[in-house]
Parts: sequence; structure tokens; C-alpha cells
Amino acid sequence: MNKLVIVGTVAFDAIETPFGKTDKILGGAATYIGLSSSFFNVDAAVVSVVGEDFPKEYLELLENKGVNIEGIEIVKGGKTFFWSGRYHNDMNSRDTLVTELNVLADFNPVVPQDYKNAEVVMLGNLHPLVQTGVLDQMTTTPKLVVLDTMNFWMDCALPELLDVIKRVDVITINDEEARQLSGEYSLVKAAAKIQTMGPKYVVIKKGEHGALIFHNEHIFFAPALPLADVFDPTGAGDTFAGGFSGFIAQQGDISFNTMKTAIIQGSNLASFCVEKFGTERMVNLDTKEVNARLKQFKALTQFEIELEE
Amino acid sequence: MNKLVIVGTVAFDAIETPFGKTDKILGGAATYIGLSSSFFNVDAAVVSVVGEDFPKEYLELLENKGVNIEGIEIVKGGKTFFWSGRYHNDMNSRDTLVTELNVLADFNPVVPQDYKNAEVVMLGNLHPLVQTGVLDQMTTTPKLVVLDTMNFWMDCALPELLDVIKRVDVITINDEEARQLSGEYSLVKAAAKIQTMGPKYVVIKKGEHGALIFHNEHIFFAPALPLADVFDPTGAGDTFAGGFSGFIAQQGDISFNTMKTAIIQGSNLASFCVEKFGTERMVNLDTKEVNARLKQFKALTQFEIELEE
Repeated sequence: MNKLVIVGTVAFDAIETPFGKTDKILGGAATYIGLSSSFFNVDAAVVSVVGEDFPKEYLELLENKGVNIEGIEIVKGGKTFFWSGRYHNDMNSRDTLVTELNVLADFNPVVPQDYKNAEVVMLGNLHPLVQTGVLDQMTTTPKLVVLDTMNFWMDCALPELLDVIKRVDVITINDEEARQLSGEYSLVKAAAKIQTMGPKYVVIKKGEHGALIFHNEHIFFAPALPLADVFDPTGAGDTFAGGFSGFIAQQGDISFNTMKTAIIQGSNLASFCVEKFGTERMVNLDTKEVNARLKQFKALTQFEIELEE
Repeated sequence: MNKLVIVGTVAFDAIETPFGKTDKILGGAATYIGLSSSFFNVDAAVVSVVGEDFPKEYLELLENKGVNIEGIEIVKGGKTFFWSGRYHNDMNSRDTLVTELNVLADFNPVVPQDYKNAEVVMLGNLHPLVQTGVLDQMTTTPKLVVLDTMNFWMDCALPELLDVIKRVDVITINDEEARQLSGEYSLVKAAAKIQTMGPKYVVIKKGEHGALIFHNEHIFFAPALPLADVFDPTGAGDTFAGGFSGFIAQQGDISFNTMKTAIIQGSNLASFCVEKFGTERMVNLDTKEVNARLKQFKALTQFEIELEE
């Protein structure tokens, strides 16, 4: 079984959407990535940090899904990272209400010894120096390194971000971030420019409008499944990244065909994530539901056209 | 060969985009629909009105593409409908600078005798009473009636619009218009509600984000082809409608499978339209280019996933 190292936050979230609000619930990029990757046949380990206030049940929840949690440091007397946000009516934009870094401020990631030779590394959204710190600990060159990031690091830590971007194979960012990073409005041009910065593959996430993957002259598109109700978009991008990297780790091959299926798998899992608040839907999701919805993705996109040669 | 009746404007446009501006050039919904439908094996006729100032070459251009222009009334001493608009930097929104209705103000559409039994009727964006007037002239029930409309008629002529909507099989509108017409934010819910208003098929156009078709519990999605340069979006929606209705008329069948291919064909043709100002790209487009790009659509969307039953 191939190994997948996941670095990212494990956190408390408090979320408000037009449909309701939550108290502090389980959240964090690595949590969503871990849950999502657990739908594939991989040996995944999360590298993260929490405070002493973090409930054991949450860690056990990941463990019960087969995710190794050895690399989640528990800081004595520390408080867990906390984020709170409110979504606007269109669910496409949100305001951050609270960000308490807490133990994340001094996070020094440690990759467990057994995972330093992992085939795939998924660098969740975090300070680029933390992402670099994880790469530096790998003892063999991973088959694939995937990096997720956001505009915040482009604004506050661009040189460090550019340094780590140079070292990754795949970058996943949203459309606005791709434009900001490249200075190009057209996503085709943006993706071409970002490929000159290091990543051979550029994944552009467009939320409800789907996701694109660019590689040289190849482009592939996965729509988002049209849903009657989107309850809470939190974690959808991370769930996408978990499905993407989890599927590739399972397959153990990095052909463009595998990448195509990987963004379909990521979109499919993300379509569940948004149906309930926080991680609730992902925690209770089963493989049958996942496979049934993959069939919906096929029906949504597959067509037949006879073309003369 | 099946017949296709196209009603809509044949007009002068003056366009400004971030890439340049034009003087009065050939435009109008029926012009784009006619040009686009000419890529299919159909007997298409445009029903419209122009003034005496309208260049003969423009009419000949349509005729040379095999489009019947008998139904285009030329009003002696009249001036042709003129629209001028300026696109914003993102190309997704525009300001209307000038609208001179001219001969369109008293337009009384007359369907040529030979086309009153057409298999497919494409009602381009116009006053809903004009669209109704065309339907009333059909002597046999068409296999399929497609209606395109816009928010302007929802604001100014809603009862008349609802009346004609009751009588059509397919409606094509953009996402904001679908929300306005249905009062539902979710496109899935919007499409379901619009299906109760008459049309059995709802096509929702999302511009650069592609197009969806809804029919009962079926959904199919056609992406827009990601392009390095979008030069002028004018006419893209009409070109889409021309490809959609032209393909269905050619096939002569209205199965959901045909509809799927039809929205791919429409998206494919629209991807050319935006590459040059006005109708320029459509006028010079050849079938080889169209087929080559259909292959790109396949590469963009087709994937293989093995699913256990």
C-alpha cells in the first residue's frame, strides 16, 4: 500500500451560513484531506499540531478511518488553532470573523520515521516554510508532491511561497489565486505561466464551477455536481485535494489519465462535503454512496459524438 | 432535410472590448443563430426585419451559407436596429451604450409559407409577443420549439413572457436569469421550477463556466473550452443556441442523448465566436476546424472510471 503524507491544520471551526451556525466543531485542512483520502486504499499519515484542549474523540475519529496520527503533536497546555467565518448568501464568499493561531504559531512539523519515504506528499494550505520543512524531511524523492495554498501567502510570504512552489509537481489554487500568482487574467495563460514556476501540473479550483487541470498542452475539466442545497462550503477545497492526492497515491502512477480521474474523484468527494456542516457528511459517508455519485458524474459529462477522421 | 425557423434580430452592432472597438458591424441574434446553424445539414430560414440602410452583402452572406432570407423584411426608408455596448475588463459584464430599435419597434414577423411546417423553431431573444406571433403561424406542431430570452423581458413583459414560455419545449437562459425567473438561488431548484412553467428542458448558460441542461431527473453539463484569449463575447449565447437547435434539427430526434450532443455542439461553436470581433470568426470558420475542436471537447471531458456494480 502506498504512503501518503498529509500536512495541514487540525483545528476548531465555528461556521455561519444562511442555513445556520455551529459552535466550535472539528475542522482544519488536514482533517478534511485525511477524511477524504480515507476512501482510497492508502496508508495516510497526518502531520499537524493541536492543543491540550483538543478532544481525543476527534483524533480517534481520524484513527478509526485508518489515518495515522502519530505526526499530530499535542502541545501541553496549548490551545488548538481556531477559525470562525460567516458565508454570504451566495456561499461563494465569506468573512473571517476570528483567527486564533494558538499552537499553530510555533508549529514545527515532524514527519514520522515510517512515512519519510512516502510515495505522495500532500502539502495542505499552511505557511510555505512549514510546507518546505516537510519536504526537507523526506528521505526519498516522492513520486508526487501536491501543494495547496491561498492568496494570504501570496500577500504575506511570496518569496517563501515561490521557493516551495519550485519544488512541487502539482499546485492546487482557485481561479482568483491563479490570476494573482501569474498576473494573467486568462486561466489558460495563468496555468502556462505557473508551469514555468515549477509545478508540471496546475489544478485550478472554481468552486461550484468545477476544476481544471493543466499539463503542457493538455487540459481536463471536472464539473462540480449541481446540488439542490449547498449547506456549508467549508473544507470543500481540502476534501477535493484529499480525493485527488488519495486517488493518485492509491494508483501509484502519475499519468495524465490518472490525474483526470483524480480530479473527478476529488470533485465527487467535495460534492458530499458541502451537504452538511463541517465534517459531518464526510465522517458518515460510505463507499456505496461515493460510487453511486461517481455514476452521476459520468452521466453528467459523458457524451458520444461521431467524428470523421 | 429538416427545416429550422429562426426568429431574431438582424442588426448593426458597435462593440468595445479591452482589445479594441468596432464601427457598425453585422450583428443580431438571428444572424449569429443562422451562421451557427449553417454548420449542420438543415434547411434554415431567418425571420427578421432590417432597414433600407442594411447592406446587401450582409444578406448575401447569410444566403451564401445556405440560410433562407425570404423572411427578412426590408423596410423602405427604415433604419436597421442598432446596438452598441462596452465590455468590462473581465468580459463577463457589459454596459449598453446605445439601443436604437428603429424598424424593430413595429416588427411583425412573417414566416415564409414553405417554413410553416418546420420541424424545429428557434425563437431568438425578442419581445415575447413577437415570439408568440411566430408560433401562431406554424401550421403543424413543430417537433421542438426552443426559446431564448433575457432578464429585460422578465422586467418589462413578464406576463407575455410567461405565456410564450408555456408553449415551448426548451428554454435557454443564463444563470442569473434562471434565478430571477424562478426565485430560486440553486440552479437545480431553479431548473425544476422552470420545468413546471412549460419547458420540459431547461438550458442554463453560464458563459465561461459552460452550460447545463436539465430534464426531469437528468442533468448534463458542457464546459466552455478554456481559451487563451477571449476577444469579444458578443453573440456567443446566440451562436450556442444556433448550434443547439441546428444540430437537433439535423438529427430530427429529441432524445436526451441528442440534447447532450447538441449542447456540446453549441458550446463548441460558441468557443469560436468569441475569438474575433462580431461575426468575423463564424463567417470564416470551416467544418474541419469545428470537428478538430470537438475532439478537444472530448479530451477535455471524457474519462474512464471502473465502477463496481
